[in-house]
Amino acid sequence: MAQIPATMRAAIITEHGGPEVLQIAERPVPEPGEGEILIKVVAAGINRADVLQRMGKYPVPKGAPDIPGLEVSGTVAATGSGATRYREGDKVVALISGGGYGEYVAVAETIALPLPSPLSFAQGAGLPEAAFTVWHNVFECGSLRPGETLLVHGGTSGIGTMAIQLGKAFKAQVIVTAGSDARCEAARQIGADRAVNYSSEDFVAAVSDFTGGRGADVILDMVGGDYTKRNYEAAAPEGRIVQIAFLKGARPEIDLATMMRKSLIHTGSLLRPMPTEAKAELARNLEETVWPLIAAGWVTPVIHAIVPFDEPAKAHAAIEGEHIGKIVLNIGEED
Amino acid sequence: MAQIPATMRAAIITEHGGPEVLQIAERPVPEPGEGEILIKVVAAGINRADVLQRMGKYPVPKGAPDIPGLEVSGTVAATGSGATRYREGDKVVALISGGGYGEYVAVAETIALPLPSPLSFAQGAGLPEAAFTVWHNVFECGSLRPGETLLVHGGTSGIGTMAIQLGKAFKAQVIVTAGSDARCEAARQIGADRAVNYSSEDFVAAVSDFTGGRGADVILDMVGGDYTKRNYEAAAPEGRIVQIAFLKGARPEIDLATMMRKSLIHTGSLLRPMPTEAKAELARNLEETVWPLIAAGWVTPVIHAIVPFDEPAKAHAAIEGEHIGKIVLNIGEED
Repeated sequence: MAQIPATMRAAIITEHGGPEVLQIAERPVPEPGEGEILIKVVAAGINRADVLQRMGKYPVPKGAPDIPGLEVSGTVAATGSGATRYREGDKVVALISGGGYGEYVAVAETIALPLPSPLSFAQGAGLPEAAFTVWHNVFECGSLRPGETLLVHGGTSGIGTMAIQLGKAFKAQVIVTAGSDARCEAARQIGADRAVNYSSEDFVAAVSDFTGGRGADVILDMVGGDYTKRNYEAAAPEGRIVQIAFLKGARPEIDLATMMRKSLIHTGSLLRPMPTEAKAELARNLEETVWPLIAAGWVTPVIHAIVPFDEPAKAHAAIEGEHIGKIVLNIGEED
Repeated sequence: MAQIPATMRAAIITEHGGPEVLQIAERPVPEPGEGEILIKVVAAGINRADVLQRMGKYPVPKGAPDIPGLEVSGTVAATGSGATRYREGDKVVALISGGGYGEYVAVAETIALPLPSPLSFAQGAGLPEAAFTVWHNVFECGSLRPGETLLVHGGTSGIGTMAIQLGKAFKAQVIVTAGSDARCEAARQIGADRAVNYSSEDFVAAVSDFTGGRGADVILDMVGGDYTKRNYEAAAPEGRIVQIAFLKGARPEIDLATMMRKSLIHTGSLLRPMPTEAKAELARNLEETVWPLIAAGWVTPVIHAIVPFDEPAKAHAAIEGEHIGKIVLNIGEED
């Protein structure tokens, strides 16, 4: 068994503020509990929730580490009692409730998944949050079916680029919105059938045009605000609108007459506070449905930048700026 | 075969306005088309949609008769070609897209259902709209399961009184809101486990108290307006809010953070514009699940008043005033 140190380096939030409040500090290495594995982290995905946490706008759920970071790739360094699936040295990825910006993290083995063989550790670190989010929201909550139309707002985000690929892999038509012609071109390269530059084009009209007046069957929305009412307009009869964030406002006005006339379903979810058993079930479903597509090379996380561990502030600055796909922090070396 | 006259009496909307614009007029008797039956109407249920139509606020769907009336009971007077289920004289009830306030109405036989034997024609006339609406919205859209809690706004309306009975028949806990202590007492008599007088009590607090802080699993709402945000607060995790009207406003503000945190589903439907095939499937489901409960005497439409055909204005005045359960118009005599 490899030597596990008592302490590790971690990028922590020293106080609420801009990217510069992220600093490297010494922290105890966590111990894997019952049913947990200890992962020696190679890379960690950066998420908007980390930024909100840094700004003091996203309280850390009870029991979660205060070190930020919701997804990692790495190797199994140790196993807790009753954890039998993985062996030391296995390459894994995991969705975690915090602690990803540290050299080691402990996680229930039921939530870890094997690093799919075609992926680098950097690509693997950008996989869990997007894959869990898109699968749960688009396919489980939104029930996207082959032949249907999926509208994805923020088409070039980490989640957007995953939604395009999974939507296409499951035989849907995919239309996305993005904020520039360059982003729209990138979304099309990744597989979108149609990309709408929201700064010059109305997405409701574009969706109507693209679907012959029918509308989108599933809408994955992280925008909220005035998009909410427009989503109702852009939705097909029996359309499902799935809310995963609300960058433009949490308290929009809706139109109940449109909801009733079209029999719309408006729903949403938050991955982070989900109980471990629910995440484990999601992990099993993903391994069965999505992992084979990644193994076959049909779905690949899009990585915008790999930022050195010493410069966590750069990673946060990058996610707040222009990017296409995921930004990951390179925490350690592959053994 | 009974003699079918060429013309019939019908209560029609002479112009948009108050109850007094309803007048009896002579109209041609409709002919049953392919797969249709002609019903000699004994009684017609009065609905709020009829009132809106009278006021010019509810346009008649394309292809629907301009005579108001969305539900009837009566006997089969004739059958169209290909209509094989019913024979002349059979007692039936039917949900229709209009025409109920006339002595005869033609309807697809797949949408008509046998008048359950314990019911009078008056009770039967008050059954279809409430049964179809509650079944579709609470059980199909809302997926109410045994042991769950159902919150019904407008607990003493025709729909509310049916929702109480069906909720209890399917082993849910039922909590209702109503506007007076007398109405609350009536709702409890009909079977509600808890009735909240909304003019003196906050329903969010009452639901929380009743469910030990968990909230309602399914909320059937015809109120909208400021109730919408309060419904989100009153809902349990994974709660389903089903919108069937919006008496207090169609454009409420919602809270996406609450929706996401609780994984709520907000949906709704309109029965009237539903395609005939969808209504037929709903009718089959009702016959299988709800009709046996009515036959057994466990579920009985609550009838507030039976108004003579000559006084349709009285029926509309009654539904706009205080009432508990359905108001029906006595159109013809039982043969």
